[in-house]
Amino acid sequence: MSQKTLPLSHSGMAALADTLPTPFHLYDEEAIRQQIRAFKEAFSWVPDFKNYYAVKACPNPAIIKIMAEEGFGADCSSYPELLLARDAGMRGEDIMFTSNDTPASEYVAAKELDAVINLDDITHIDFLNEVAGFPELISFRYNPGSGRTGNAIIGNPVEAKYGVREDQLIECYRKAQEKGATRFGLHTMVASNELEGSYIVETARMLFTKALEIHQNTGIIVEFVNLGGGIGIPYSLDQEAMDLEAVSRDIRALYERMIVPSALAGLNIVFECGRMVTGPFGYLVSRVLHVTSKYKEYVGLDASMANLMRPALYGAYHHITVVNKEEAVKDHVYDVTGSLCENNDKFAIDRTLPSIEEGDVVVIHDTGAHGHAMGFNYNSKLRSAEYLLKSDGEVQMIRRAETIDDLFATLKF
Amino acid sequence: MSQKTLPLSHSGMAALADTLPTPFHLYDEEAIRQQIRAFKEAFSWVPDFKNYYAVKACPNPAIIKIMAEEGFGADCSSYPELLLARDAGMRGEDIMFTSNDTPASEYVAAKELDAVINLDDITHIDFLNEVAGFPELISFRYNPGSGRTGNAIIGNPVEAKYGVREDQLIECYRKAQEKGATRFGLHTMVASNELEGSYIVETARMLFTKALEIHQNTGIIVEFVNLGGGIGIPYSLDQEAMDLEAVSRDIRALYERMIVPSALAGLNIVFECGRMVTGPFGYLVSRVLHVTSKYKEYVGLDASMANLMRPALYGAYHHITVVNKEEAVKDHVYDVTGSLCENNDKFAIDRTLPSIEEGDVVVIHDTGAHGHAMGFNYNSKLRSAEYLLKSDGEVQMIRRAETIDDLFATLKF
Repeated sequence: MSQKTLPLSHSGMAALADTLPTPFHLYDEEAIRQQIRAFKEAFSWVPDFKNYYAVKACPNPAIIKIMAEEGFGADCSSYPELLLARDAGMRGEDIMFTSNDTPASEYVAAKELDAVINLDDITHIDFLNEVAGFPELISFRYNPGSGRTGNAIIGNPVEAKYGVREDQLIECYRKAQEKGATRFGLHTMVASNELEGSYIVETARMLFTKALEIHQNTGIIVEFVNLGGGIGIPYSLDQEAMDLEAVSRDIRALYERMIVPSALAGLNIVFECGRMVTGPFGYLVSRVLHVTSKYKEYVGLDASMANLMRPALYGAYHHITVVNKEEAVKDHVYDVTGSLCENNDKFAIDRTLPSIEEGDVVVIHDTGAHGHAMGFNYNSKLRSAEYLLKSDGEVQMIRRAETIDDLFATLKF
Repeated sequence: MSQKTLPLSHSGMAALADTLPTPFHLYDEEAIRQQIRAFKEAFSWVPDFKNYYAVKACPNPAIIKIMAEEGFGADCSSYPELLLARDAGMRGEDIMFTSNDTPASEYVAAKELDAVINLDDITHIDFLNEVAGFPELISFRYNPGSGRTGNAIIGNPVEAKYGVREDQLIECYRKAQEKGATRFGLHTMVASNELEGSYIVETARMLFTKALEIHQNTGIIVEFVNLGGGIGIPYSLDQEAMDLEAVSRDIRALYERMIVPSALAGLNIVFECGRMVTGPFGYLVSRVLHVTSKYKEYVGLDASMANLMRPALYGAYHHITVVNKEEAVKDHVYDVTGSLCENNDKFAIDRTLPSIEEGDVVVIHDTGAHGHAMGFNYNSKLRSAEYLLKSDGEVQMIRRAETIDDLFATLKF
C-alpha cells in the first residue's frame, strides 16, 4: 500500500493555499532529490548509470536544473526541450534527443548541441545525414513488434508508430557505420506507467540480446542500452511502487551472465524516466468553489482539465485529499469536477471523501509529471502557476500563472 | 453522402501551402456566412431567432466578428470568452453566459456586460445574488436526468455535471422571482455532435413542455427556450448533415400546437451551436515530413495533437485529402501521425489514401470547431497560426503561430 502524504503539515498546506492564488502546482524539491539518489543508488553497479529525465513530464527550468545538479541527463523530444536542457547546464551526452517524425531543424539543433541522437526510423539515417551531417555517436530506437506485448498504456508495439522494425535493426547499424558513426547506442520504449518490475527486467534482457546480435552480425560494439522510461508510480493506494533494488538485482544477474563475459563488457545502462522521478512529488492545490446536488453530488474546484488532463484523457486515477480533513470520516461520495464545458472535466467520479464545504482546499496528488505539461487553454482557461517547495523550506514561484494577455498574445501581430 | 471540398482550387491550395509556413488552420469566411444565413433562414418563422455561437469552438476575434455581423450572438463560458464577445461588438442580450462551477468574478463580469446569465445550479441563485446582485433576466440550464438518454458524446444526463435537476426546476424559478427577476429563459444541452434531427425536435418538445409547466406552477412567462448546441456535422463521407429545414418544420408544428394557443405565445427559440456553424469550413493544412514503413505504413505530418486533438482525445474521424492527388487511385493504407511522444498522436489509423510522398500537402477537414481551440503545448509543441480566406479571396492571418518566446513567457516574472 502506498502512502499519500503532503510535503507540508496540514496547517502548512492550509496557510500556503491562503497565501497563493489557487489553483497552483507545487513540487517537493527534497523528495525529488531523494528519489533521484535512490534511483542512482539502486543502479550504482552500472558503469556510468544515468537517467535522462523526460523533459516533457515537467518542462520547468527549475526542475531540469535539479536533474542537472544530481547528475541526471535530459530526454528531449523537441527543439524547445533541447533549449531547456541546455539552459539547465546540460551539455553533449547529458542530452538524449529521442523524437519521431522529426523536422530537419530539430536534428540540426540536436547535432549542434552534440546531444545523443536516437533515430526512430531507418529512413532517418539518410535524412539526418543530409540535413545535419552524421554524428560519431548514434542510437536507434528498437520496436520489437510482436516480440513484446506492450502494456495497456503504451499499446501494442506492432501498432506503435515508434522505432525500427525487427528486420531493419541490423541494417540500421550497418548503414550508420557507412555514414561514419563510430559509437553506438540501442534504445527501446515498450511500456508506460508500468509497476511490474519484471517488465523492465525483460526489456533489459531483450536489449542485451539485441546488442549481442548486433555485435555478432556487424562487429559493432554497442556502448549503451537505454531501457526507456515507463517505470510507473502508484497513483492509487492499493498500488505499490516498483522495487528498484529488486529490478536492479535481476538486471545485474542478466548483465553478469550475458554481457560481462561478452565483447560488450562495460556496456552502459541508462533510462529515460520522467514520471517516477517527479510524478509522486507534485501536487495540484485547488479550492472548492461549489458543492451541490444534481442527480449526483458534486464538488466543483477552481482547477480544471487546463491544469491536469490525465483523468479526462486517460480515465486516470489521482488520489485526492482535503486539507485539514485528513482524519475526517469518509462518508460522502462525490464527483469532483472542473469548470470546463466538457463533461469529462472531472478529477474523480464516485470518490469517497469526507464531507466537503465551499472554500475547502483540495489536493490532487501525483501531478508532478504530465500534469501542468499537458494543460490546454480550451474554454479560454488559463494555466496555473508552478511553485517549488525548496529543500530549505522556502516556497519559490518557478512559473507564473497565465494571464489574459498571454492567452491573447498570438492575436497581436 | 457529404462532399469534402476545399475552399480553393487544388493549385490554389498548393500555392497557399508553399507561401505560408505549415501547419496552419484555414477558415472559409464565405462558407461560414452562407451557413449562418441558411440556419437563420430555416428558423425565420421564430419571433426573434438567434444562435449564440459557442465561442469555445473557435475563439478567434475574426470569427466572432463574423457572427456579430450576421446577427448571431455568443455563448460564453469564461471571462476571456466574454471579452472576445464584447470586443466583437456584442452587447447585452447578444451574449449568453453559460458556465458551470463558476467563480464569483465571472458572474460579476457577465452581469456588468448585461449578458444573459444562464444558471447551471440551484445553489448559484444565492451565489449570483451575493457576488453580483440578481439580474432582471435569468435563465436556467435544465438537466432532464433519466427523462432523456443523452447521446454518445455528451453522455447520460443522469451522469452529467450540468444543470438543474428535474425536481429543482420549478423551485429555481420561484427563487429567482423572489430575488427580483422579472424575465426568464430556459435552456438545456443534452446532445453533442448529433446528426439525427429528431433528437433536436424532442429537445424542443421537452423545453416547450417544461416552459408550460413552469407557467402553470408559477405564472412565470418564459421568454425564450435555448435548445442548446449539439447539432453535429458529417465528419465522414457516409454521414449526412442534419436537414435544418425539416427540423425547423417539425419544431414549428409543435410550437403551433403547444405554444401558440398558450400563455407563452410569442416564446422565442434560440440555439448555442458552434460546431455546425464553423466546423465544416475549417481546414488544418499540413505538410508530410516523413513516409516510412514500420510494422505498418506511416505518414508523418508536421502537425500534431497540438493542432488538433479530437482524433487522439475522442478517437474522432477527420477526413483527409492530399492536395493535387484528389483524383489519384487510393491504393495505400497509412497511419497518419503527428510527432508527439504519445502513441495516440495519430490523425488517422489504417486510412486508405493515394500514395504519399515527403513534401505532399495534406489537408485535414472539418477542423473549424474544437480544432485550434483545444491545442496544447505538450512536448513543448507550438500551436499554429490561423488564417481566414475572406469573402473577397484575400487570405488574412487572424492569429500568428506561437513562438518559443510565447512558450516560455510564463517563465519570465
